[in-house]
Amino acid sequence: MAVKSLEELQQLISKKIDGFCEKNGDGRIFQPVNYILQLGGKRIRPALSLMSANLFTDELDNAVYPAVAFEIFHNFTLMHDDIMDHAPLRRGKPTVHEKWDVNTAILSGDAMMIQAYQLLIKTDSTKLIPLMQLFNTTALEVCIGQQMDMDFEQKDLVSVSEYEEMIRLKTSVLLAASMKAGALIGGASQESQDNIYKFGIHLGLAFQLLDDYLDTFGEEAQTGKRRGGDILADKKTLLMIRAFEKAGPQEMDVLNRFIGNKEAQAEEKLSAILDVYQKLEVANDLKEKVLHHHDTALQSLDLISVDADRKQALHSIADMLLGRKG
Amino acid sequence: MAVKSLEELQQLISKKIDGFCEKNGDGRIFQPVNYILQLGGKRIRPALSLMSANLFTDELDNAVYPAVAFEIFHNFTLMHDDIMDHAPLRRGKPTVHEKWDVNTAILSGDAMMIQAYQLLIKTDSTKLIPLMQLFNTTALEVCIGQQMDMDFEQKDLVSVSEYEEMIRLKTSVLLAASMKAGALIGGASQESQDNIYKFGIHLGLAFQLLDDYLDTFGEEAQTGKRRGGDILADKKTLLMIRAFEKAGPQEMDVLNRFIGNKEAQAEEKLSAILDVYQKLEVANDLKEKVLHHHDTALQSLDLISVDADRKQALHSIADMLLGRKG
Repeated sequence: MAVKSLEELQQLISKKIDGFCEKNGDGRIFQPVNYILQLGGKRIRPALSLMSANLFTDELDNAVYPAVAFEIFHNFTLMHDDIMDHAPLRRGKPTVHEKWDVNTAILSGDAMMIQAYQLLIKTDSTKLIPLMQLFNTTALEVCIGQQMDMDFEQKDLVSVSEYEEMIRLKTSVLLAASMKAGALIGGASQESQDNIYKFGIHLGLAFQLLDDYLDTFGEEAQTGKRRGGDILADKKTLLMIRAFEKAGPQEMDVLNRFIGNKEAQAEEKLSAILDVYQKLEVANDLKEKVLHHHDTALQSLDLISVDADRKQALHSIADMLLGRKG
Repeated sequence: MAVKSLEELQQLISKKIDGFCEKNGDGRIFQPVNYILQLGGKRIRPALSLMSANLFTDELDNAVYPAVAFEIFHNFTLMHDDIMDHAPLRRGKPTVHEKWDVNTAILSGDAMMIQAYQLLIKTDSTKLIPLMQLFNTTALEVCIGQQMDMDFEQKDLVSVSEYEEMIRLKTSVLLAASMKAGALIGGASQESQDNIYKFGIHLGLAFQLLDDYLDTFGEEAQTGKRRGGDILADKKTLLMIRAFEKAGPQEMDVLNRFIGNKEAQAEEKLSAILDVYQKLEVANDLKEKVLHHHDTALQSLDLISVDADRKQALHSIADMLLGRKG
């Protein structure tokens, strides 16, 4: 058996991405592509793509380029989303539209998406059509998720199910599709592909919800971000949505006083909203959701009929994720 | 023989695009996609793609979706280029970033590029890999062409060959690749595919250069645009580049006085520059280039070994193009 560890797969991907950047050279349009790719990141999508292939085969060569394609596509979405969100920083460094300008970020992003397709087709040609269909459907869903996220900013009320649908589209489908692509190339049955996809969806949802939790309740030392950023930005996270749903007149008063209020003092706002969150126990609602998605993910993994030791790495990742909650 | 006319092919494409838009529905992200596609345009790329397939086969079904894919991609580039160029109008109507906003134009453009790939793969699967390779290479070249065009704005000196390389990348390669894709799907040999590509490149160059000519010397009734727009915008067209190359001290003085001078009166600037153009006979330089590309295009068409009557339609288009000069 030759099941590779997460670290081995991350290293393999990083080497491929270094090679990709080197081949890009320093042409004007590729500089921002190389820049965003070299900001780092955990390469979690391509690593899990390879890990999914590795469930079914020891031969990962055909799976590497498509895995990298998903990572390039992911970074393309970051480059364009950062423009749309007016984000000044990405992983502590200036975003592309800040370091260069908006036009550069648009155009280099476009080039990057095309490059993802160039890598995607470097695979076993007998799998190309289902792979392309999966990639295209997913890519379009990611755009629709970003659209929903932007639309939420203009909406007064967002429901829990709308919120979950948005994060499913904006973040989970790409993780799930990376994994399904690996399984497809690794020779998995349709049923196994569907199960690994479902694993990815629920893992992604749990991960994103936990991110919301950590933004509000996490230790700054752990997250590397200022605590309460979502609250200060009036983001409609699950915590906020549940707070509005559960609020009595008194809490509603506090929420209405601070949410959308650009004049409010940051510290005062943060402490008032955290107080409401605590009274309404919305953190518990979120934790329940995370546990639910974690369990659903593992149930899907259980349904895949390969040796338990081949699945161990994916099991550990799901548990490691839960461990983040600390 | 069943060679279809340009009008028949344009109608066929228009119907397919109508169907595409209908299927898109009026979801938030697709409204701008449908809007830009329904601004019209001559559907010249997909029509010539089908015409190229039609050189080699009467069976065009497999060629239709890829042809439409090239048109969708073309319109995606218009949506993003209009943002970068701060263009308020496209075909007399507000551009997408004006009618909606920049974020919408970025995101709907991204979705549109993905949709091009969705259509592209709906073809004869045995041709999919060379088709995808052609499409990807071309799409990336178009981005590089747009980058060159933007870079030229910051440069003092641009040479004729740099200018031709920019318009080759920004406009010709997409026309040429649409045609080559048609030929590929129609069953052409590699040599014929290369010749049709060369035909498309030189047709595209002739067309773009003629566009520059008409902007400066055309009748407004014919072009539908205000005459001299390129001059007033200080665009580095072939006419301008040649004027700087050929100018004596006196003409150089006029050029330096007006080019880049935002204070200059439009009418005065236009008449001074036109005067320089006339003295230096730069219109002749441009016409020579157009004729050269027209002839080179036809030479490539001649080399394709199919019956002359199958090639008649493409011949006519090349001549019709030249007729625009009036």
